[in-house]
Amino acid sequence: MTVVRVEQKVLNENQRIALDLRRRFEEHDILCLNFVSSPGSGKTTLLECTLAAFGPEEKIAVLTGDLQTENDARRLARYGFPVQQIVTGGVCHLDGKMIERHLEAWSLDDIDVLFIENVGNLVCPSSYDLGEEAKIVLLSVTEGEDKPLKYPSIFHKSTLLILTKVDLLPYVPFDIEAAKANARQVNPDIEILEVACSTGKGMDEWRAWLEKRRSKRQSAAAGGAISAKNERV
Amino acid sequence: MTVVRVEQKVLNENQRIALDLRRRFEEHDILCLNFVSSPGSGKTTLLECTLAAFGPEEKIAVLTGDLQTENDARRLARYGFPVQQIVTGGVCHLDGKMIERHLEAWSLDDIDVLFIENVGNLVCPSSYDLGEEAKIVLLSVTEGEDKPLKYPSIFHKSTLLILTKVDLLPYVPFDIEAAKANARQVNPDIEILEVACSTGKGMDEWRAWLEKRRSKRQSAAAGGAISAKNERV
Repeated sequence: MTVVRVEQKVLNENQRIALDLRRRFEEHDILCLNFVSSPGSGKTTLLECTLAAFGPEEKIAVLTGDLQTENDARRLARYGFPVQQIVTGGVCHLDGKMIERHLEAWSLDDIDVLFIENVGNLVCPSSYDLGEEAKIVLLSVTEGEDKPLKYPSIFHKSTLLILTKVDLLPYVPFDIEAAKANARQVNPDIEILEVACSTGKGMDEWRAWLEKRRSKRQSAAAGGAISAKNERV
Repeated sequence: MTVVRVEQKVLNENQRIALDLRRRFEEHDILCLNFVSSPGSGKTTLLECTLAAFGPEEKIAVLTGDLQTENDARRLARYGFPVQQIVTGGVCHLDGKMIERHLEAWSLDDIDVLFIENVGNLVCPSSYDLGEEAKIVLLSVTEGEDKPLKYPSIFHKSTLLILTKVDLLPYVPFDIEAAKANARQVNPDIEILEVACSTGKGMDEWRAWLEKRRSKRQSAAAGGAISAKNERV
């Protein structure tokens, strides 16, 4: 009983911080995306390919989480955008407080898109809202197609599923249609993309998805400004 | 502070159960192995190949953990040995109490080797002793070779690292020597095997490792019996 109560208290405290983060992201027209997957599904690689395609004038920032090492921040910093490593020191997920603390180093006016790469884990990150606009779950075709059924919470809460490493499909016994059907069974509205960073397959569709979300965010921000103006009248 | 205290209490309670499990496994000469990895690294596939090679007279049993579904138990039950699924319902690891409860269905005299397949997660299972004789960590070559540095605790606590899916090495940018060096950096004593269930590569070495541990267990049991006899004199 005590464990459940303390866990609930931690989650409530996180929810309060996440709501505040979401409000701040909206105020500053920031599209914040939270990437979750197993270790080794290709979150860092996808972010590398994504950053490589942005011009230097773009206002992109990345927070990347791991239990230990600054490896991912080093890999991602090569693209010239601000990157911070969050070392959780054993904690199996990022939480709102970690995001809040690391954002202090940056001016939110200098950010249009904030990518958060969570700790590699399909379980714990699903319970922690980071104020993101959308969770994106990655599943590599070298894993099993039944993962959405085995780890339903994260697939249920994600807006987009990115099937990664699809260039390896000829070499692995992965039934991609079954994987999609399993994901839709736990989340009928989930959008699905297929990518392979090594060949560039699906990267146009992924960038189009990203731009659509950015435009939507900007329209929402403009709408928000108009409605705020109207309220003032 | 409260969170830390409650977590400590849970871990202490688990440790008490794990010690009792270990004592019972020793009393019944059971070799208990706890398999840990990311989701999709091939724990179930390795167990399938392993079970397929045992004769029907062997006393093997399997407990397999997942957040949801009985898929793995169904896959593993096809080999004719007793298998139970442990559905954790959202919990990110197995714990001693779950093992204790599921063992009630079996007579320990009918088991020589108990395989425990943990929840797919490189973080949480490392904190929970299940009374096993050894933890075995799997890392597939489709993941990154820096995983031992990013998730040091489980590599530190494991006796054996099995590098899986090595048949995919020609198609992935995985530096196997770097992976081994990283594992040895966090655990200089870790033993390392390379396997590919789809081609059978490394399976002889894996079975030899297993038989060596079984013989060691039986010698220890015989030694234990002798020393117990001596104590009685």
